[in-house]
Amino acid sequence: MTLRHKGITAPQGFTAAGIHAGIKKKPGVLDLALVYSERPGPIAGVFTKNQVVAAPVVIDRHHLRKGTAQVVLVNSGCANVCTGAAGMAAARTMVRIAASHFHVPPHHVFIGSTGVIGAPLAVERIVEHFPTLAARLRRTGGTEAARAIMTTDTRSKETARTARIDGKLVTIGGMAKGSGMIHPNMATMLAYLTTDAVIPQRLLQRAFARAIDHTFNCISVDGDTSTNDTVLCLANGMAGHRPLRSGTAAYRTFEQLLHAACEDLALQVGRDGEGLTKFVEIRVAGARRPAEAKRIAETVGTSCLVKTALFGEDANWGRIMAAIGRAGVPIRPDRVSLAFNGVPILRQGATLGAAAERRIAKVFKRKEFTMEIDLGLGQATARMWTTDLSYEYVRINASYRS
Amino acid sequence: MTLRHKGITAPQGFTAAGIHAGIKKKPGVLDLALVYSERPGPIAGVFTKNQVVAAPVVIDRHHLRKGTAQVVLVNSGCANVCTGAAGMAAARTMVRIAASHFHVPPHHVFIGSTGVIGAPLAVERIVEHFPTLAARLRRTGGTEAARAIMTTDTRSKETARTARIDGKLVTIGGMAKGSGMIHPNMATMLAYLTTDAVIPQRLLQRAFARAIDHTFNCISVDGDTSTNDTVLCLANGMAGHRPLRSGTAAYRTFEQLLHAACEDLALQVGRDGEGLTKFVEIRVAGARRPAEAKRIAETVGTSCLVKTALFGEDANWGRIMAAIGRAGVPIRPDRVSLAFNGVPILRQGATLGAAAERRIAKVFKRKEFTMEIDLGLGQATARMWTTDLSYEYVRINASYRS
Repeated sequence: MTLRHKGITAPQGFTAAGIHAGIKKKPGVLDLALVYSERPGPIAGVFTKNQVVAAPVVIDRHHLRKGTAQVVLVNSGCANVCTGAAGMAAARTMVRIAASHFHVPPHHVFIGSTGVIGAPLAVERIVEHFPTLAARLRRTGGTEAARAIMTTDTRSKETARTARIDGKLVTIGGMAKGSGMIHPNMATMLAYLTTDAVIPQRLLQRAFARAIDHTFNCISVDGDTSTNDTVLCLANGMAGHRPLRSGTAAYRTFEQLLHAACEDLALQVGRDGEGLTKFVEIRVAGARRPAEAKRIAETVGTSCLVKTALFGEDANWGRIMAAIGRAGVPIRPDRVSLAFNGVPILRQGATLGAAAERRIAKVFKRKEFTMEIDLGLGQATARMWTTDLSYEYVRINASYRS
Repeated sequence: MTLRHKGITAPQGFTAAGIHAGIKKKPGVLDLALVYSERPGPIAGVFTKNQVVAAPVVIDRHHLRKGTAQVVLVNSGCANVCTGAAGMAAARTMVRIAASHFHVPPHHVFIGSTGVIGAPLAVERIVEHFPTLAARLRRTGGTEAARAIMTTDTRSKETARTARIDGKLVTIGGMAKGSGMIHPNMATMLAYLTTDAVIPQRLLQRAFARAIDHTFNCISVDGDTSTNDTVLCLANGMAGHRPLRSGTAAYRTFEQLLHAACEDLALQVGRDGEGLTKFVEIRVAGARRPAEAKRIAETVGTSCLVKTALFGEDANWGRIMAAIGRAGVPIRPDRVSLAFNGVPILRQGATLGAAAERRIAKVFKRKEFTMEIDLGLGQATARMWTTDLSYEYVRINASYRS
């Protein structure tokens, strides 16, 4: 099905806009995004688990308890974290100007900030430019809103998915920012999804949390640990079908739609990893427990030595074995099998020799491939995505504030 | 006190040598080291906790149960790990040739290997060149032995410390290799210490384990998790004082000597970190428990974003706060204080402003400085050392096997 509108404005009733408000120094670069729904509706959210949290996360968590939303206002260029009482005041100002402009209760407004940590937020610029921003709201504004939340991202990230439920067209749209995937537990990931589905808040929260766990949380390993990470889903109910109920086919359709939208955004975030030259899917099988499979995937996927080997196109599978061995999960080295894009190199702990080495060396030349680890101990599996660690990653992060 | 001999041959009764046996491809580069004690004596050892372990570690662990040693034979250029039955056979061959040459029981021989993972060890070259190596053993051979165990190290690492116990001169010598400190839990660290002290094996093991915990294990964060990490201390008893007993002043003198020797080697390993341009001591204070203080230090010290900021001389203390917040230790952000070389930037969660920013920016220009974190919650402390993450680190690790 072709959608008339892109990204976060794809579902019925949503408009969006993005402008340059002057939070970022460079003239003309978009740094303030607004998303508005004609009608208030239930909202679901998942936030960072970091104990040091940004002011907007404090606000959003508080507002989420009431469970209804209509407006989302996000700035890039400043994360508004470690900014004390002034930062909280700035965040409250963001809420207040949006609420008063749209005549909605403050708790219907959600806000976000991403950018430099520790610097004060020039909220007066947001106040000054807000009327211009609100005046730009339109059905085609999803793309400029997606651009306005970018930081080190090299491209904007949008998604839209649609399906029929009860004979009605139901759409999920979304936008995301984040490109710090190489060491993701510090880089901010923001994702906003919208839908016109009719769904109670509790069910939306349950479906959303599950979708995130299998998508964003797999791409970003510890994506829940930055100071600002925020993923929200706003449902305005304008599709007009009967309200979704748990256990029904209609709900499963919605779940699949939500999963697809989240996976699309998550993979876009992953592929835009800072300084990335490789994008590798790690599949762990044969673990005793899902948590152990996940632990192995994360240890391999975050190992600097594995990541630099990927960058060097060096099929140094010994480093992968060493990472598996130190993951803190009981393993039997003589049962471990390893393959890349289906090409085996280690079978039950025994190397398959020089010809196999040459074959996997070819796989390592590809930009994207899978790394298949079988522990040979049980039935549990896990999947995650990782990238290489490149010169460019170091360059971006060494010069981020300058 | 000036010592007549350097490094591992500083204590009485020890000789050493290093040669090129052809394990490394480059002609003339030393790759095989031998240390020999005139007399057998107690040996203490600490090994990697990785479940994937190199063949020499399997052998050494087994020999350590008997607790006596006289010979140490180490090759560089090949780690002899993930090499299966052939690797175990090669390791046993190393033991056998040394034991038969010196007419000592096999369990008096300890071996080590460091270098590429997963490649077979060309043990026939060790067999062929062993007689030449043994013939070179001499009191001044410590330095060439230290050079022969190097891999990506940019310089060899030796130490020697001496004190009087019971009126006798007691010496501890040592050599180490390892420069993977930036992500140390994969890079092999080997350290060998020798002493002429008279000490029972159990007491030596206890003193050694404690010294390692406060030195090597702090420099290398998870130094216990490579596949080959081995730290051994051989005591031949030739100083001739009364045997050391726990709780005595003589024992404390020995403990201090051992700590100083280990710290010296550990700091040399740390300062030779792959691609290092900064060397930073992290001091955590005000924690509720020592384990929590250590966890905070490790999380900050291994954060890629903190390390790239160090490389960029960017005093981005927000990244340090974010790392503290995600360490998995309960904290109160409003009690955390931060300083660099004693210059404060954050006091009980509040930033000290632009002038303080300028002062700490100067500290970040230094090659070595301290990072002082006070959690404001208790009395426990921890200390570790870290380095920056540079282009050079990526280059070294992306091209290691080529």
